[in-house]
Amino acid sequence: MTQADGGETVLSRATRVLEAFRPGTPSLTASDISRRTGIPMASTHRLVAEMVRLGLLEKGPDRLLRVGVRLWELGWRSTSALGLRDLAMPYLEDLQSVVRQHTQLALLEGTDVLYIERLSARGQTTVNITRVAGRLPAHTCSSGLVLLAFGSQDLQERVLTSELHRFTSRTVVDPAELRRRFADTRRRDSATLAGSVHLDAAGVAAPIRNRDRTVVAALSVIVPNSPDTVSSALPAVMATARGITRALHHHPDATR
Amino acid sequence: MTQADGGETVLSRATRVLEAFRPGTPSLTASDISRRTGIPMASTHRLVAEMVRLGLLEKGPDRLLRVGVRLWELGWRSTSALGLRDLAMPYLEDLQSVVRQHTQLALLEGTDVLYIERLSARGQTTVNITRVAGRLPAHTCSSGLVLLAFGSQDLQERVLTSELHRFTSRTVVDPAELRRRFADTRRRDSATLAGSVHLDAAGVAAPIRNRDRTVVAALSVIVPNSPDTVSSALPAVMATARGITRALHHHPDATR
Repeated sequence: MTQADGGETVLSRATRVLEAFRPGTPSLTASDISRRTGIPMASTHRLVAEMVRLGLLEKGPDRLLRVGVRLWELGWRSTSALGLRDLAMPYLEDLQSVVRQHTQLALLEGTDVLYIERLSARGQTTVNITRVAGRLPAHTCSSGLVLLAFGSQDLQERVLTSELHRFTSRTVVDPAELRRRFADTRRRDSATLAGSVHLDAAGVAAPIRNRDRTVVAALSVIVPNSPDTVSSALPAVMATARGITRALHHHPDATR
Repeated sequence: MTQADGGETVLSRATRVLEAFRPGTPSLTASDISRRTGIPMASTHRLVAEMVRLGLLEKGPDRLLRVGVRLWELGWRSTSALGLRDLAMPYLEDLQSVVRQHTQLALLEGTDVLYIERLSARGQTTVNITRVAGRLPAHTCSSGLVLLAFGSQDLQERVLTSELHRFTSRTVVDPAELRRRFADTRRRDSATLAGSVHLDAAGVAAPIRNRDRTVVAALSVIVPNSPDTVSSALPAVMATARGITRALHHHPDATR
């Protein structure tokens, strides 16, 4: 592969340029990018100019750089995001119309949960934590608990032996306790987590399985943190996740 | 910029590899990619291997290549897609709950309409034409008519002097007639197009404006093709588009 200065490939550098953009800072100057990536200024300028030419970045009237809509469009050709999301969307709408809380669909990416869809509940006081294409460390949220509990032994070990991030005093960071939660999640075929990401919120999640019964995604809702709201949301979440599982069996191409 | 064989840059080649994946063919072999892009087989293998390593492509258990979820995630850092979509989503849900038809949010990309969100109407007999991240030539659909009518003179000329694609006998491909439609759309602040993409469907669209009154997106619904359905959907589409416009004025960062 053709290499840029310093042994790193152009493609690797271009990927790092894209990663320099974050939800909180969607527009950057070339100097910002150079500083965030450590790529020398002259090389950054050349790379950015080409990325703008290819539509991977856009330069606004304010002269600031943004990730191009073209990249968003190319990303939608990813079958796992596109197919599963399209298929699950009507079910998410149904679930949200019944529970009237934030409703989410998530995949596992490495040891993070990646939210591929989210319907937000307006007028709800529930804290707003996640967003589409947002991530959370898997051990901190109910979707992640589901995806880890049904994941491989290898994956579980990788998480349990890593530095476990803590959001609140209620975030579970003890490996032995997490192992118990995994077993509990498998037994109940669902997970609930209260106060783990934010003390005022609780998550309720259930697995979505593909044709060969592998868990490929998690469906979840975020409710105000109280035993009542959690127990009343749980059956709806589990039933809806099974509905999506059933639909997936008729459209096996919708998952990886 | 570092160049691959034949003078084309690695980044340009990588972009063409991503473009080889299309909605109908989400998984490809390296040979498929080489054939579709014209990049020699050995170079394709090297490029694909690096793209897999960077998460831009994924190799499934079936050994087939797909666009990586990582790319989808990076694409969501695009502010125009992410910000506008998030802001408009509750309004789209409201509109859909009232009109019970396919509801869509679109941007102009070149001379195409790019759909950045779509809520589908289940149980509707309306033909299913568009999808998220899908495109249509702008002159063929109501959203496109809105975006062209309020676009620059340059853009309009570019469309009117190009080869105008025809989907049905009702697709307007006469430049003089399209010019009249543009004027009509500006006068009515909305566009309707019946049978243009599919004889059984009609589109109803209205403009979404940013703070300085520039049209940045179009809101539309697809209804069964009859004068009644079109005229009953129109006020709801126009009112909702104005609601999104109003919301945008409080969140100017949501558009490019």
